[in-house]
Amino acid sequence: MLPEKTIERLSMYRRVLTVHQEKGNDFIYSHELASILHLTAVQIRRDVMLIGYTGTQRKGYLITDLIQKISEILDDEVSVNAIIIGMGHLGKAISNYFNSNRSNIKIIAAFDKDQTKVDRIISGIKSYHIENLNKIIKSDNCKIAILSMSPKDAQNVADALIYNGIKGIMNFTSVPLNVPETVYVENYDMITSIEKVAYYVKKN
Amino acid sequence: MLPEKTIERLSMYRRVLTVHQEKGNDFIYSHELASILHLTAVQIRRDVMLIGYTGTQRKGYLITDLIQKISEILDDEVSVNAIIIGMGHLGKAISNYFNSNRSNIKIIAAFDKDQTKVDRIISGIKSYHIENLNKIIKSDNCKIAILSMSPKDAQNVADALIYNGIKGIMNFTSVPLNVPETVYVENYDMITSIEKVAYYVKKN
Repeated sequence: MLPEKTIERLSMYRRVLTVHQEKGNDFIYSHELASILHLTAVQIRRDVMLIGYTGTQRKGYLITDLIQKISEILDDEVSVNAIIIGMGHLGKAISNYFNSNRSNIKIIAAFDKDQTKVDRIISGIKSYHIENLNKIIKSDNCKIAILSMSPKDAQNVADALIYNGIKGIMNFTSVPLNVPETVYVENYDMITSIEKVAYYVKKN
Repeated sequence: MLPEKTIERLSMYRRVLTVHQEKGNDFIYSHELASILHLTAVQIRRDVMLIGYTGTQRKGYLITDLIQKISEILDDEVSVNAIIIGMGHLGKAISNYFNSNRSNIKIIAAFDKDQTKVDRIISGIKSYHIENLNKIIKSDNCKIAILSMSPKDAQNVADALIYNGIKGIMNFTSVPLNVPETVYVENYDMITSIEKVAYYVKKN
């Protein structure tokens, strides 16, 4: 298994490579990729070597091949179904973002407990009442859930998700979740990020 | 200057400590904090020692003192003014989140180029047309900006922000920004996070 930071960088490389390819480029040098992403060329060459790919010194990396290689590492062979819980502003923002970016991960259903937000299409995604969680997860073989709901129900919803077979959670609620070791949780908290920005602004 | 990861953890400790304090607790052991945040007690003791604080072996850390110490490290003496650019769903989600969580950072103005979103209060924040950027940044001494707008204008807006004195940017646009070395940028990309979750689910 590759380290978390490597996985994050591979995902970023792929996105930059795709944009570069759409602009009509066939090759990219590690130093170009490095400059776009504010990393070092050494870091990029190390990551790319780690996944068993090499470029040519003269022309750099062949973009299609490198995208292909990264996709073999990151993606499942078939697309992965995810669900999202909480269709407030954050849930809608995430859904729109996914709809407008190519990804191997598809958000196939949304859930909310607010009656005005269920049994309709919101941001391109069919939204169900939270009571239908069990049925949808099973029928669509979902393994990933995105939590964009209010913090106070987060642990209860996480418990229900895991009970129904969810193996990975992207947690935007800022509540630390208790999950079994077999479940992977990625937490994101906006306030932590912005407090970090404020710290470095203060220090500079 | 403390490492980025330490700053992130200190911010998380403070949030957990605040919740713990509100529940009526005066003390917390490093192993309790560790268990809530899924870290090791050793890690927490190391971070806390790094900022020059120590608990007692018998009772653990005195919560008010530790919060105070972390705040001295993270916060400015006065609250820090931030602005947010882009009041779509993501901008509203971030604004609501800040309004409902105590933080030393205050979002004092929002900007959008959409006429229907300007000259009114959105999610508790006064929203202006982007043309007024310069005036507001100067008059309110803003140093921090949150970019929650569409990716295509991101670099132009970042340039304008920096020209007008912004020193730290929280970038949610997924576009890598070119900024001078004196400006700190923290990037967040949802797709990277969720691809990471998918990778570990696949591997487990």
